Amino acid sequence: MLINCVAYENGARLTELAVEEIGDYLERPGCFVWVALRDATHEELEKLKSEFDLHELAVEDAHHGHQRPKLEEYGESIFIVMHLLEYRDGEMNLGEIHIFAGPNYILSVRNQSRQHFHGVRERCEREPHLLQQGPGFVLYALMDAVVDRYFPTIDLLESELEEIEEQIFTREAGLSNIERLYALKRKITILKHVVAPLMEVAGKLSSNRGPVLCANIRDYFRNVHDHLIRINASIDTIRDTISTAIQVNLSIGAIESNEVSKRLAAWAGIFAAATALAGIWGMNFKHMPELQWEFGYPLALLTIFLACLFLYIRFKRIGWL
Amino acid sequence: MLINCVAYENGARLTELAVEEIGDYLERPGCFVWVALRDATHEELEKLKSEFDLHELAVEDAHHGHQRPKLEEYGESIFIVMHLLEYRDGEMNLGEIHIFAGPNYILSVRNQSRQHFHGVRERCEREPHLLQQGPGFVLYALMDAVVDRYFPTIDLLESELEEIEEQIFTREAGLSNIERLYALKRKITILKHVVAPLMEVAGKLSSNRGPVLCANIRDYFRNVHDHLIRINASIDTIRDTISTAIQVNLSIGAIESNEVSKRLAAWAGIFAAATALAGIWGMNFKHMPELQWEFGYPLALLTIFLACLFLYIRFKRIGWL
Amino acid sequence: MLINCVAYENGARLTELAVEEIGDYLERPGCFVWVALRDATHEELEKLKSEFDLHELAVEDAHHGHQRPKLEEYGESIFIVMHLLEYRDGEMNLGEIHIFAGPNYILSVRNQSRQHFHGVRERCEREPHLLQQGPGFVLYALMDAVVDRYFPTIDLLESELEEIEEQIFTREAGLSNIERLYALKRKITILKHVVAPLMEVAGKLSSNRGPVLCANIRDYFRNVHDHLIRINASIDTIRDTISTAIQVNLSIGAIESNEVSKRLAAWAGIFAAATALAGIWGMNFKHMPELQWEFGYPLALLTIFLACLFLYIRFKRIGWL
Amino acid sequence: MLINCVAYENGARLTELAVEEIGDYLERPGCFVWVALRDATHEELEKLKSEFDLHELAVEDAHHGHQRPKLEEYGESIFIVMHLLEYRDGEMNLGEIHIFAGPNYILSVRNQSRQHFHGVRERCEREPHLLQQGPGFVLYALMDAVVDRYFPTIDLLESELEEIEEQIFTREAGLSNIERLYALKRKITILKHVVAPLMEVAGKLSSNRGPVLCANIRDYFRNVHDHLIRINASIDTIRDTISTAIQVNLSIGAIESNEVSKRLAAWAGIFAAATALAGIWGMNFKHMPELQWEFGYPLALLTIFLACLFLYIRFKRIGWL
Amino acid sequence: MLINCVAYENGARLTELAVEEIGDYLERPGCFVWVALRDATHEELEKLKSEFDLHELAVEDAHHGHQRPKLEEYGESIFIVMHLLEYRDGEMNLGEIHIFAGPNYILSVRNQSRQHFHGVRERCEREPHLLQQGPGFVLYALMDAVVDRYFPTIDLLESELEEIEEQIFTREAGLSNIERLYALKRKITILKHVVAPLMEVAGKLSSNRGPVLCANIRDYFRNVHDHLIRINASIDTIRDTISTAIQVNLSIGAIESNEVSKRLAAWAGIFAAATALAGIWGMNFKHMPELQWEFGYPLALLTIFLACLFLYIRFKRIGWL
Repeated sequence: MLINCVAYENGARLTELAVEEIGDYLERPGCFVWVALRDATHEELEKLKSEFDLHELAVEDAHHGHQRPKLEEYGESIFIVMHLLEYRDGEMNLGEIHIFAGPNYILSVRNQSRQHFHGVRERCEREPHLLQQGPGFVLYALMDAVVDRYFPTIDLLESELEEIEEQIFTREAGLSNIERLYALKRKITILKHVVAPLMEVAGKLSSNRGPVLCANIRDYFRNVHDHLIRINASIDTIRDTISTAIQVNLSIGAIESNEVSKRLAAWAGIFAAATALAGIWGMNFKHMPELQWEFGYPLALLTIFLACLFLYIRFKRIGWL
Repeated sequence: MLINCVAYENGARLTELAVEEIGDYLERPGCFVWVALRDATHEELEKLKSEFDLHELAVEDAHHGHQRPKLEEYGESIFIVMHLLEYRDGEMNLGEIHIFAGPNYILSVRNQSRQHFHGVRERCEREPHLLQQGPGFVLYALMDAVVDRYFPTIDLLESELEEIEEQIFTREAGLSNIERLYALKRKITILKHVVAPLMEVAGKLSSNRGPVLCANIRDYFRNVHDHLIRINASIDTIRDTISTAIQVNLSIGAIESNEVSKRLAAWAGIFAAATALAGIWGMNFKHMPELQWEFGYPLALLTIFLACLFLYIRFKRIGWL
Repeated sequence: MLINCVAYENGARLTELAVEEIGDYLERPGCFVWVALRDATHEELEKLKSEFDLHELAVEDAHHGHQRPKLEEYGESIFIVMHLLEYRDGEMNLGEIHIFAGPNYILSVRNQSRQHFHGVRERCEREPHLLQQGPGFVLYALMDAVVDRYFPTIDLLESELEEIEEQIFTREAGLSNIERLYALKRKITILKHVVAPLMEVAGKLSSNRGPVLCANIRDYFRNVHDHLIRINASIDTIRDTISTAIQVNLSIGAIESNEVSKRLAAWAGIFAAATALAGIWGMNFKHMPELQWEFGYPLALLTIFLACLFLYIRFKRIGWL
Repeated sequence: MLINCVAYENGARLTELAVEEIGDYLERPGCFVWVALRDATHEELEKLKSEFDLHELAVEDAHHGHQRPKLEEYGESIFIVMHLLEYRDGEMNLGEIHIFAGPNYILSVRNQSRQHFHGVRERCEREPHLLQQGPGFVLYALMDAVVDRYFPTIDLLESELEEIEEQIFTREAGLSNIERLYALKRKITILKHVVAPLMEVAGKLSSNRGPVLCANIRDYFRNVHDHLIRINASIDTIRDTISTAIQVNLSIGAIESNEVSKRLAAWAGIFAAATALAGIWGMNFKHMPELQWEFGYPLALLTIFLACLFLYIRFKRIGWL
Repeated sequence: MLINCVAYENGARLTELAVEEIGDYLERPGCFVWVALRDATHEELEKLKSEFDLHELAVEDAHHGHQRPKLEEYGESIFIVMHLLEYRDGEMNLGEIHIFAGPNYILSVRNQSRQHFHGVRERCEREPHLLQQGPGFVLYALMDAVVDRYFPTIDLLESELEEIEEQIFTREAGLSNIERLYALKRKITILKHVVAPLMEVAGKLSSNRGPVLCANIRDYFRNVHDHLIRINASIDTIRDTISTAIQVNLSIGAIESNEVSKRLAAWAGIFAAATALAGIWGMNFKHMPELQWEFGYPLALLTIFLACLFLYIRFKRIGWL
């Protein structure tokens, strides 16, 4: 579905075009065309392929989707794949945006995502001194917008981790902690695959040996690269912390297990002492003088009680109870 | 066993040949010969070695098999080893395909695998504008076919992992989970050894310093390289997830162990209380007035019952039962 | 908030300036301006941006803060971000200092930190032969001061680790050890993110391909780099030791658990023996001759005592008690 | 001990020499001398040092032994250290072979190993077209022989690992598994130190910047390099599998522990129930009507039996028995 | 404290000097001065700084000490820091040696170490053909001596590890094993920080792009580098083995715990059976015919004995006892 298709000259919006008119504007010097598609059909892609003379393999990739973030150069043109991230209700939804850019055109195709980029176009049009840098700047603006939208997801995952951390040391929710850590690990792995290759892409775009198309705005791509490095560092920290948390959870489980064992041992000992004493006075020997005493029974009860009390205090002192 | 042996000129099929005729066509400009063998005998290899002037070490490798995926350059010719993967009924079967390619010939030898490549030849013959790029393009087509067949195996292993994950948190199949995770680890390790070196090969073929033979179709090899990077990333994710799952399984085992200990402790306590009380009233002291009371017995039973109930409720409340 | 703004000529303090006068001094040969701000407002930054012709992206970064340590070159000027570390009462507070430096100016902006750098200015003014090297030397002096302040934090964390280590082997504080190790891991991770990227920055500044601004004092930056390598090595050691300590804590938990189990088993056995014997003599068989003996009871008590003693000694010998 | 010392010309054996005659043949064009020593004494080495003008440090290394595999270039000459591996009855024996090679000589010194290389000399002499490549080819032949002898050791270690794996899941030999895994880890670590540096050596010999001596037979060294990469990959797989196996063994131990705990809990519960019931009817209350009933006893026994049966079935159903 | 200060010419000892005379000899061609200090005071360093024109930062480093091993080039001069290792009675003592070397001087400052280097000077003076290579060779001789003294420490640590390994599988000293492994890990970490950076230093000194000062004796530094690689590999092996040993110790703990649990369960079962049976015959039912039989009691004892025996044999058979 075509979202819009506009020609720009010297940083200013010239006119909205039909796809068929694109060819006329591509020849005009100082002019470039910016096309945005959404969930493009095969026909739409084929039409634009012939208009812009896109490379067959890039168009195929855009059509099939499920690419990893990457940058491919075909002569002077470049093809970029980025992931769009939506994290809602604990579910992570991945969309894709494919961008074809050449000296006089930029074409973005967004797939399976509700995130739109109207704001980027508006911002670009408000800054003609930057927009006149051409498609390279539009590419930067899109990339910056995509990357900026990763930050809230990172923040959410960090909060999730902090919530789990709080529970780990309260020792109430052992199993659910593990489940949540495992689920978090899965999510952060997805995020890693979204961010790490894109970081490489941004690195290439900002380096001196990057594509000519972006030569004059490398400082801007360096800024995006920097954001991605920061996100990537956060991801690595979260991953590392998850690993430690899983280990710590195991350790705490073991410590708790020790405590349960000790209490079990202590109570078992106390009851066993009572039972053994009662058993002794329950024996049927004929000559057991204490059985005949008037105060035998209360004394026996007292003895049992004192034995238990003694054990109880002892266990309390060594910390088993 | 010779599968077929065909000469091509300017991207079009010229004629099927006997092995002995190969020499005649190698001299013709714009012509190349494409030979496919299967489980080749020593004699067949020797014959083709002299026809194509293959390097002795490469032929030896092809004969012995059990190579790791690799690319070797002998002057203008190259020798490539790839693995063919068949994953059926939980068993992983590894075949090999050895490809010798030079400026005017391409020879593929398939070993210990039922996977054929008739479709590749057909597709190539349907696209003469690409096939006229020569043996380099045929090499790409074969490699692309080999790599595309890795994807279903990855998908199967991912499903296996997901199945195991589901069971881990239901806590029913501790030991079988571990066995399955271990088996999966073994399979994914095999896959890693199939994919990682091939990724390197594809990287070399698509780089500027790659063999001359593939110089004009580097974009295509970059595409294959990209697929392999994607597969490799999936493999790494699965490996990492398996490690985490093994750890998690251990943690869950520890947590479950705690719960069993607690229940053991709780029930042991309840019964021990009953036994101790009964033991006390079973003592043979002469002066135990409650033994003479008419309602002594029911009261004793009640006492025992209440003591047990009290403990039961208490244990229930602290979550041990 | 402006802290101060001074012009220097040939290493000597010339005069204190108002921000508006800066332009006059930038033109004077052999003269440079050193401005220090604290928690700068947007207006202050904008004013200085136009005075020094700072790059928009750098100013934005300085305004937003929350950057990772980095070095960015904009033509002849450079922009550096460093973290200021305050570790007090177990809480780690991160401030930031942003430095803009060009051939004839240096501007530092300190954010969210109570650490001031008056001492640096004083020291610089006392060494005119070094200060006349220009803004590069000031940059070095600031960086050296920032890095020197990291050492006490490292020392504190190392002491914390040593304290925990002492407790690990006394086996008294299992759970609190884990909590403290986990908290320490978190702190050291923060420190790692403070130091590692800054090490890279110092590496670039001291290398032959570093910015021209620092060309004549590379030996000094190499010294800072060296300090950071040392800090980084300490951090890695602490991280590694924490991992080992967590593992060791788990192991000790398991060993302690074994000991508790053994003691539990031993005492359970001793009491169970007593109870079983008492139970036997509590049976109501008519013909139990020992029940009639005069010394039956004392002998029975002795038997029970000896059985328990035998078990006690045995358990003692095999180390279960 | 001198094994043999032969001069070759144009790939053909010329004559056997005494050490003193070596000098005469070194001057002859197209001629090279191949000397093999075994557990050389200091005197032998000194003599050959002066004959071939070997570098002092290399001779010292050869004399002291206990080197790691390495390649050192001294001008046009090279010095190579490789390990000889004998794996017999679970014991790993490491010998060394030191090779000095120059444009017109090759000298091998074998230490502490019973492996001889007669076969290599014979094979070389049977292939004069290769042998006339000079000492570089002899070096290749020796290296190829050394590396080929690593494969059986790898195979043995892989079988050992498979044996252990089979036992891990039969759960009978927990401790012996761990011991065997640990021993295997030790052996594989030795192997790693034998193979990894040698792989580097072979890599250098086969690269374009390798020693001139081997320039014309780089394809052959690439082959050796390839074998070493394969061995190295196997080693890494074994190491990784051992780690996983140790973890898995721990997990299985935990699972088994759970099962033992459950069975312990179940049987303890059953017996405790019987004991508690018997205790109740063993109380000495005067008014316990059921004690007077004629069928009281059998009914009591039945009650106890049913209670135990009920518990037994319940435990069976939840999988504790 | 000055140890000695000698001038050499063409590899031969010229004369012992006072520090003030140094200047006279520095000018003489073919002559160099070798000064050795120990725990130098600030004044001594300042004096030598002006004599040799040492760089301020290097002198500061030498004065403060606590540097990591490093190599710094200041023009034609170099500054090297190495650690001196004394391992005695399980305590690791770290000293430092700082070496300043230039085209015509070498100055070594030893700190906090009792290790002296008289032997190095003697050996150098005995080999004038090597000593005439100048300060570079002296540097090599010192470095070689320092590195050679690391080997015994490595050997001691390896023996410690082997001792611990022996105990791990005898299962007697669980906790002390862990403590010793932890202590060993700490020591090996120190060693790693001593060796790894020095290896880098030696690598630089032996490379083609190393300092001019050492250009003619690179083969010698390569030898030192090789020794350090070997030490470093040993360190890595020990570290890796410690990790495995800690894991193995945990596993063995778990296995032992299982065995204790099983024995506990078995004995608990046996006694519980006896108690339950005795309890039944201790019930006070009127009509319990077996109580009246003459052989009731012995039969009961027999029954109890047989029940216990049956359980004992059964537990023995399944390996729980």
